[in-house]
Amino acid sequence: MENKWLVGVDIGGTTIKMAFVTNNGDIVDKWEIPTNTENGGINITSDIAKAINEKLQNLGESRQMLGAIGLGAPAFIEMDTGFVYEAVNIGWKNFALKEILEKETGLPVKLDNDANIAALGEMWRGAGDGAKNLLCITLGTGVGGGIIANGQILHGINGMAGEVGHITSVPEGGAPCNCGKTGCLETIASATGMVRLAMEQLSSHPQSALFTIYKENGKLTTKDIFASLEKGDTYANEVVETTAYHLGLALANLANAFNPHKIVIGGGVSKAGNLILDPLERHFKKFALKRVAEGAEFKIATLGNDAGVIGGAWIAKQIQ
Amino acid sequence: MENKWLVGVDIGGTTIKMAFVTNNGDIVDKWEIPTNTENGGINITSDIAKAINEKLQNLGESRQMLGAIGLGAPAFIEMDTGFVYEAVNIGWKNFALKEILEKETGLPVKLDNDANIAALGEMWRGAGDGAKNLLCITLGTGVGGGIIANGQILHGINGMAGEVGHITSVPEGGAPCNCGKTGCLETIASATGMVRLAMEQLSSHPQSALFTIYKENGKLTTKDIFASLEKGDTYANEVVETTAYHLGLALANLANAFNPHKIVIGGGVSKAGNLILDPLERHFKKFALKRVAEGAEFKIATLGNDAGVIGGAWIAKQIQ
Repeated sequence: MENKWLVGVDIGGTTIKMAFVTNNGDIVDKWEIPTNTENGGINITSDIAKAINEKLQNLGESRQMLGAIGLGAPAFIEMDTGFVYEAVNIGWKNFALKEILEKETGLPVKLDNDANIAALGEMWRGAGDGAKNLLCITLGTGVGGGIIANGQILHGINGMAGEVGHITSVPEGGAPCNCGKTGCLETIASATGMVRLAMEQLSSHPQSALFTIYKENGKLTTKDIFASLEKGDTYANEVVETTAYHLGLALANLANAFNPHKIVIGGGVSKAGNLILDPLERHFKKFALKRVAEGAEFKIATLGNDAGVIGGAWIAKQIQ
Repeated sequence: MENKWLVGVDIGGTTIKMAFVTNNGDIVDKWEIPTNTENGGINITSDIAKAINEKLQNLGESRQMLGAIGLGAPAFIEMDTGFVYEAVNIGWKNFALKEILEKETGLPVKLDNDANIAALGEMWRGAGDGAKNLLCITLGTGVGGGIIANGQILHGINGMAGEVGHITSVPEGGAPCNCGKTGCLETIASATGMVRLAMEQLSSHPQSALFTIYKENGKLTTKDIFASLEKGDTYANEVVETTAYHLGLALANLANAFNPHKIVIGGGVSKAGNLILDPLERHFKKFALKRVAEGAEFKIATLGNDAGVIGGAWIAKQIQ
């Protein structure tokens, strides 16, 4: 058992990331295949099974080398049975994913959602450094989250635990969110949300570097915002301060409830490093209890796109 | 083992509540002794040991009848060792509580803080009905909380998990809180906080029932506020709406992160029953994700003062 490899699988809307991973979390080999969302995603499980077999052949290894599969997907999953209620971007609906993938591969399968396996990956081999109480937040197109408490990922009563992107940051008059509510943290702290904030008051700041960039490119990105901040642009600073303020407040409120050891920030926005981390920590400390703030360490995620497959391997390890 | 009694102990600043409890959580006998806070609380452990022996004698039972002690105290406790860093209202400072109480009683001892054992009591035998994902919030002089996730009480990295009373409800210009911050939920949703809110605008509402009561009694209580609300007083309704709004927002934000099955409201304010629960649930549903709101059931705590000793017995059961 000790020497067997774990299979980490991270399904996205366009590609499926896969890896063979050792029992210690080292990647032996990693690769990607396209996500075939046709016909309600019916071929995805056989595509995964085929890809595993081909990779084994290429490496000259037998099926006996593999212990178990851990798979993450952007889906509502019934944890006990591995049944997928719905995965909008994949096409699955009422799909017995665990059962079917176990039949196709002959390996035991464990599932979780994509944000949770990313958090487990960072906990195991990334910025989390094995912390048993960890909050992982991903600032990308949306804001995703995974919460580890007492060493376990939280799922809650119906798999919704960790939906920190839908904490309400602006209770009255906030921007509409994809979830149907308004003023969610996601509308302010995601990459999309930061650009929205920057666009909102852009015409009132014709002197700003952001205004010039927008005029040239016809659009803005978070990269533009942080680059302008670094050059001393006041308006870019205002935008980042607004994001850091709301994110710091939301994380401090969560931290007063969870008392995490590590707070790991991932996703596109986290590439700004200290430009986002410094103002974020400053606002966090204003709103967190002193002892809670002392216990919490902020870290930028380190695994990038590998977080999912490593976290997948971690959940596979639990059933191997 | 099955037939042995568990000893639940709930230490407060003035009294120590004690009970012998069966393995199923039924109270065999319960009683109180005064908390002797003199000399840094040095006599408390021998007082507890003596009270246990006397009660056994009265019941005509031997020491063999007892399995373990579970004790809650308003204290910062190192969970692994049962060492108390500080318990301001008791007097302990750097006190090896678990070790000393085990020597005094000859029984294994497990500790936790008072808010956590109350949450565990409600989970086991109260409004929580065994829910593995439960949020318990106590609206009393302050606002306390206990969070159960995956069936375990959360402690976090340094014992601060569950400090939901210090979630920031009013980020700018909020009232000062005992913790040193401003605008904490406790300044709005505790009994003290509700009376503070009512007093704040009282002089602008000379027609209100609350104004008349204040003139007569020289003070207001939450009982006055809820009684006036019941009689249709508009200003009392405003005060309760403000509390329910902020509490609903804070609990919805927590619920989006935890996805609890039960949200149990205890403490003095909870005696108002549906007068607080109805507006609270209305505001909660505005701010929680739909699926999160569907998964969460609000309940008024049912165990009252027994929650602590029953929760104490629950943690004793874990080590028996």
